[in-house]
Amino acid sequence: MPESEQDRIPGRYGFDEIAANQLEAWPNSYPERDYVTHFEIPEFTCLCPRSGFPDFATIIIDYVPDKHVVELKSLKLYINTYRNRQISHEASSNAILDDLVELLAPRWMRVVGDFTVRGNIKTVITTEYANPDYQGPRPELKRFLPAIG
Amino acid sequence: MPESEQDRIPGRYGFDEIAANQLEAWPNSYPERDYVTHFEIPEFTCLCPRSGFPDFATIIIDYVPDKHVVELKSLKLYINTYRNRQISHEASSNAILDDLVELLAPRWMRVVGDFTVRGNIKTVITTEYANPDYQGPRPELKRFLPAIG
Amino acid sequence: MPESEQDRIPGRYGFDEIAANQLEAWPNSYPERDYVTHFEIPEFTCLCPRSGFPDFATIIIDYVPDKHVVELKSLKLYINTYRNRQISHEASSNAILDDLVELLAPRWMRVVGDFTVRGNIKTVITTEYANPDYQGPRPELKRFLPAIG
Amino acid sequence: MPESEQDRIPGRYGFDEIAANQLEAWPNSYPERDYVTHFEIPEFTCLCPRSGFPDFATIIIDYVPDKHVVELKSLKLYINTYRNRQISHEASSNAILDDLVELLAPRWMRVVGDFTVRGNIKTVITTEYANPDYQGPRPELKRFLPAIG
Amino acid sequence: MPESEQDRIPGRYGFDEIAANQLEAWPNSYPERDYVTHFEIPEFTCLCPRSGFPDFATIIIDYVPDKHVVELKSLKLYINTYRNRQISHEASSNAILDDLVELLAPRWMRVVGDFTVRGNIKTVITTEYANPDYQGPRPELKRFLPAIG
Amino acid sequence: MPESEQDRIPGRYGFDEIAANQLEAWPNSYPERDYVTHFEIPEFTCLCPRSGFPDFATIIIDYVPDKHVVELKSLKLYINTYRNRQISHEASSNAILDDLVELLAPRWMRVVGDFTVRGNIKTVITTEYANPDYQGPRPELKRFLPAIG
Amino acid sequence: MPESEQDRIPGRYGFDEIAANQLEAWPNSYPERDYVTHFEIPEFTCLCPRSGFPDFATIIIDYVPDKHVVELKSLKLYINTYRNRQISHEASSNAILDDLVELLAPRWMRVVGDFTVRGNIKTVITTEYANPDYQGPRPELKRFLPAIG
Amino acid sequence: MPESEQDRIPGRYGFDEIAANQLEAWPNSYPERDYVTHFEIPEFTCLCPRSGFPDFATIIIDYVPDKHVVELKSLKLYINTYRNRQISHEASSNAILDDLVELLAPRWMRVVGDFTVRGNIKTVITTEYANPDYQGPRPELKRFLPAIG
Amino acid sequence: MPESEQDRIPGRYGFDEIAANQLEAWPNSYPERDYVTHFEIPEFTCLCPRSGFPDFATIIIDYVPDKHVVELKSLKLYINTYRNRQISHEASSNAILDDLVELLAPRWMRVVGDFTVRGNIKTVITTEYANPDYQGPRPELKRFLPAIG
Amino acid sequence: MPESEQDRIPGRYGFDEIAANQLEAWPNSYPERDYVTHFEIPEFTCLCPRSGFPDFATIIIDYVPDKHVVELKSLKLYINTYRNRQISHEASSNAILDDLVELLAPRWMRVVGDFTVRGNIKTVITTEYANPDYQGPRPELKRFLPAIG
Ligand SMILES: [Ca+2]
Ligand SMILES: [Ca+2]
Ligand SMILES: [Ca+2]
Ligand SMILES: [Ca+2]
Ligand SMILES: [Ca+2]
Ligand SMILES: [Ca+2]
Ligand SMILES: [Ca+2]
Ligand SMILES: [Ca+2]
Ligand SMILES: [Ca+2]
Ligand SMILES: [Ca+2]
Ligand SMILES: [Ca+2]
Ligand SMILES: [Ca+2]
Ligand SMILES: [Ca+2]
Ligand SMILES: [Ca+2]
Ligand SMILES: [Ca+2]
Ligand SMILES: [Ca+2]
Repeated sequence: MPESEQDRIPGRYGFDEIAANQLEAWPNSYPERDYVTHFEIPEFTCLCPRSGFPDFATIIIDYVPDKHVVELKSLKLYINTYRNRQISHEASSNAILDDLVELLAPRWMRVVGDFTVRGNIKTVITTEYANPDYQGPRPELKRFLPAIG
Repeated sequence: MPESEQDRIPGRYGFDEIAANQLEAWPNSYPERDYVTHFEIPEFTCLCPRSGFPDFATIIIDYVPDKHVVELKSLKLYINTYRNRQISHEASSNAILDDLVELLAPRWMRVVGDFTVRGNIKTVITTEYANPDYQGPRPELKRFLPAIG
Repeated sequence: MPESEQDRIPGRYGFDEIAANQLEAWPNSYPERDYVTHFEIPEFTCLCPRSGFPDFATIIIDYVPDKHVVELKSLKLYINTYRNRQISHEASSNAILDDLVELLAPRWMRVVGDFTVRGNIKTVITTEYANPDYQGPRPELKRFLPAIG
Repeated sequence: MPESEQDRIPGRYGFDEIAANQLEAWPNSYPERDYVTHFEIPEFTCLCPRSGFPDFATIIIDYVPDKHVVELKSLKLYINTYRNRQISHEASSNAILDDLVELLAPRWMRVVGDFTVRGNIKTVITTEYANPDYQGPRPELKRFLPAIG
Repeated sequence: MPESEQDRIPGRYGFDEIAANQLEAWPNSYPERDYVTHFEIPEFTCLCPRSGFPDFATIIIDYVPDKHVVELKSLKLYINTYRNRQISHEASSNAILDDLVELLAPRWMRVVGDFTVRGNIKTVITTEYANPDYQGPRPELKRFLPAIG
Repeated sequence: MPESEQDRIPGRYGFDEIAANQLEAWPNSYPERDYVTHFEIPEFTCLCPRSGFPDFATIIIDYVPDKHVVELKSLKLYINTYRNRQISHEASSNAILDDLVELLAPRWMRVVGDFTVRGNIKTVITTEYANPDYQGPRPELKRFLPAIG
Repeated sequence: MPESEQDRIPGRYGFDEIAANQLEAWPNSYPERDYVTHFEIPEFTCLCPRSGFPDFATIIIDYVPDKHVVELKSLKLYINTYRNRQISHEASSNAILDDLVELLAPRWMRVVGDFTVRGNIKTVITTEYANPDYQGPRPELKRFLPAIG
Repeated sequence: MPESEQDRIPGRYGFDEIAANQLEAWPNSYPERDYVTHFEIPEFTCLCPRSGFPDFATIIIDYVPDKHVVELKSLKLYINTYRNRQISHEASSNAILDDLVELLAPRWMRVVGDFTVRGNIKTVITTEYANPDYQGPRPELKRFLPAIG
Repeated sequence: MPESEQDRIPGRYGFDEIAANQLEAWPNSYPERDYVTHFEIPEFTCLCPRSGFPDFATIIIDYVPDKHVVELKSLKLYINTYRNRQISHEASSNAILDDLVELLAPRWMRVVGDFTVRGNIKTVITTEYANPDYQGPRPELKRFLPAIG
Repeated sequence: MPESEQDRIPGRYGFDEIAANQLEAWPNSYPERDYVTHFEIPEFTCLCPRSGFPDFATIIIDYVPDKHVVELKSLKLYINTYRNRQISHEASSNAILDDLVELLAPRWMRVVGDFTVRGNIKTVITTEYANPDYQGPRPELKRFLPAIG
């Protein structure tokens, strides 16, 4: 039978996977359609650039892939890299958009950073990219998971 | 009185119906109107192409029939054929659209695959088809059943 | 004091009112405006054309009257006439639209049949009529009562 | 290809199954435990004993089986037999309890009839049976489906 | 860059992990307290013993450990073994309780199987075990995730 | 065809029915059981005794009948008699309890007056009667309709 | 100390204020902007023109003022004048719009009468006015208070 | 016509009423019953004793009156006196209880201070008084208004 | 150990920070994009200009920055300056818009003042500014926190 | 004007405050009452002991103070110390209880760790302490903030 928790050596592979991760693109199998992929990531956390105290957010990404789609596990690990970074609400939302646009060259993409209340104020950042000649769907923002305060 | 559960031979007709099923088209009795049929199917499950672990989704279909409507029981059995297939979120949503467009040649159709959370990320795929000269309604996505995490 | 329930003769006037009813039109007192009347009727039931088993729906009607409005009690009794009819989801929604358009010649009308789940699939039918030169409001579907599964 | 709806002969097997049905008891495979089975049946309808107009309810049954459990399909068909009966709210809830107690001789059973509003008043009937020496769980009423007005 | 989905060989390690899994017990680090562990597992599926068609449930487990706690990953894999079994609602809920009581010898445990609607009836099974001299908490059932129809 | 609204003479039978009404008791067909009848009446209104301005409430009644049950239509008309009375929140809730206890001599009864906000304060009055030797159920207050502010 | 309720003479100033009230217009301090004022009035009641029985509604007003805004207390008292009037759903909603347009000459105004269920049917009336050359916002209807059945 | 807002002299009677107010007791007309009065006051605000920044709460009072009930308007004005006081969450909840017990000598009373989040922590204080020989109802806390974050 | 609350001298730095505060603009790091910042501030309070009694609101701001963004702490302190001002619903919403437009010269901004009920009427003010040549997003109003009555 | 974000040196005082913090006890000003303090802390995060990946929870604390209450800011900083610790769900919940019982010697305390889903399973730990002769309130768990998945 295994030992009790305090006698075990904690596992570290999560640290290693996050450190080694590169955002990864896969071929889009349906380039003939403007279909929309929506991601909700309710477990984003980073650190406030003014104080170092933690911030929490749900990141909501909608995009229409062109030649590539993002690989889901590499996206999860990428989101984890923000945990120890000091970065503002505006900067993290725009940086996620920058990084994914650079990786995927999507037809259209929107990133929403829905942050929890700080100083009695709730902040949500919405930032969007479109290929200049894009004519396809730009759906209104829609939450599929219950919202977090 | 019947025997207890462990003494009965389990029934198998569900397996047979799923295996024998063909998606079935019926004549549309109201071709003179662009009316919308909305289906919500909260019990979709398939297997992850990377690991073989189960995935779960609600499939939401909206369409405007032209000459044919889909027969409801054959649609239910068709959805059951995914239970043992290894297929990605993007592929299953687009495959359902492909199969129904081929069967029905609808004026307009949208398929949404609303998958439960995997790796802390929720994924929803929205893919759409329209007859080139279609001018009718394209309603915003609307859930009629309570959403599933 | 009255007798107990099992000794009373049940009343039958509801049967008679339903059987005798004609959908009734009244003059529209505000023809100078394109105003919208919304009805929600959560107690529609009919019988499945394949099996004879009961189906249940909420019927949602939105319309812009022209010269006439529908009388509310006659609408309630009309809805009751479906209780013992075998009719599909598509057919009942379109038949209600046909009958009300014939009665009222409205400027615009939409009928939604929001049916409960059958065979693990929820079905909602949306069918619409507009006078060819109608330019007024066509509001997005909105529920005012809590939805029923 | 099948004919259109108006040309088909409606199926009648649902009528026959309801008419032929007997509530059916099966052996309880876990008589050594006081476990609770909860049923929610949102599609009950009957007729008002005063007027003949339809009434609608959700029937909620909780019970602790002794030697027998109720067979689910026979319960569904039994509930359908109320569709054309004129019966009050109190009488239908108590009759369901009477019939199931007679069939199953359960250790404990509670039947709730949660009726929709009539005359601006909502009525809910709760009626309960317990074997005289029953000491097991009597859980507070809990809804698992969204309530219907 | 990786190949497209249809050219990749699907991964199988999930199948292997499920097949090889044994429910695993770990030492309880806090045996001096009657603390409650609550699990909600919204992705249970099995097959109906009468027909072979799929059933879906949320399994809710509350228990007070004695010497052992259940290892979470082995519990997840164990739940997956029901996917291809034909088993009734009563039997699966009681079997999960039997297996976990045998593994853990807990002070108290309750298993709830909250199944989706079948034949217009929703079924929830609640089954409970207590060590004969147990005096600690038996909390009312409480859902922490949104309920599924 | 009927005339327009402004040309019709308004009907008065509602006034007459309310004025003529007496609360009416019917025999209880199930005196052998302590069953609970729950009423929710969301359309109570009266007048403030200090100012004459309107007040609004939902009245919630739970009772266990002894020899008699209240007739539903006479209860609806009785509630309407408060519309033009100046009476406080405490007094109306207790008066409804007094009147129904006098009429029915129930085994147990609870009346709740759930009033809308006045002066930024919401008030709810709960008042209860029990026959001295009553041992039956006294269920916690439960709302079946959505609450009104 | 004050006397008990039954010994006090009820106050009447509310009656007097309602009887004496005139809808009152005040200057709009921000005529340079097309801003929207939204009112929700959940305590509207009037009498049915066919029967004299009470009706209940929430009145929702959205408007863009031009030179004048409505004074809030005079609006509250105006709404109270409907309490003893026999008037249909269509007529009250349109009359409120007529009266406020006459008083304020707004750039745009919409009045919604969201009535509670009568005869198993819920009715909502939406009626709108716009100055012929109005180009400003016409927001979708949005409820800020929880809806009432 | 009135002047525009910036030219009017603001009214001050609210300040005067709050300053002059004394909590006021009225005779209880139903001392023969242990009935419960529930108040929800969602607009409490005071100032933090450490910083002077505002705090916000909903105050929820449940009590069983003995000889006296609290007069509602004097309670509203009393709650307003906290607006400019520096007082902790524990102290304000207990002070309200102290003041009302002193005024009313109730049979039982509970005061809940449900404060909004500060420093990422939500605080709710529940404090209770009972007459030593009190045997009546002590209802579980129940919210009738939607909760505020 | 610290003294008890009544013996401590209350801290005053919050008063000083509010009095000394100036709304502060910071450079926008992403001027190349039309991104939207959404703020929800549920703890706004001011005083009624007619009576001096408190009013409460949630302020919802959406804006597209041009060269500057507002510094969050200075916005929080600015909102606090309204606590002791007598100002109408229309005036406070428009004044917040005026002050922020003057500070930031945004591309687009909308301010919503969602006030709690007064005199049985709920009021919400929506006021908007756009740079004359602005072509970017103007999202529909969306609440991310639960609404307050 | 301040520099843009990328040119500023991030502030570090949050790191220092968390590192320097000691949980702090203050005198209880109301020791004569068994009053309950409830805390909800929705922003707890730690690291999984098996993998090092982040875990997230809401911590819910209810306690009845004896001689001391916990100082709120020191509690917030204490919760932050878990951010970089590898600790299981059971261990963190019990450790918080251990630390607070040691600090405060409360009459009664309950700590709930409501963790987000991992491996498709949601886990909630409830652990409780009571002074041996404690007779006061032990309220059922109640959430005041919306739950997080
Ligand atoms: Ca392809
Ligand atoms: Ca929209
Ligand atoms: Ca046809
Ligand atoms: Ca007219
Ligand atoms: Ca016809
Ligand atoms: Ca819309
Ligand atoms: Ca057995
Ligand atoms: Ca309970
Ligand atoms: Ca230990
Ligand atoms: Ca009898
Ligand atoms: Ca309870
Ligand atoms: Ca001006
Ligand atoms: Ca008296
Ligand atoms: Ca930049
Ligand atoms: Ca003290
Ligand atoms: Ca309880």
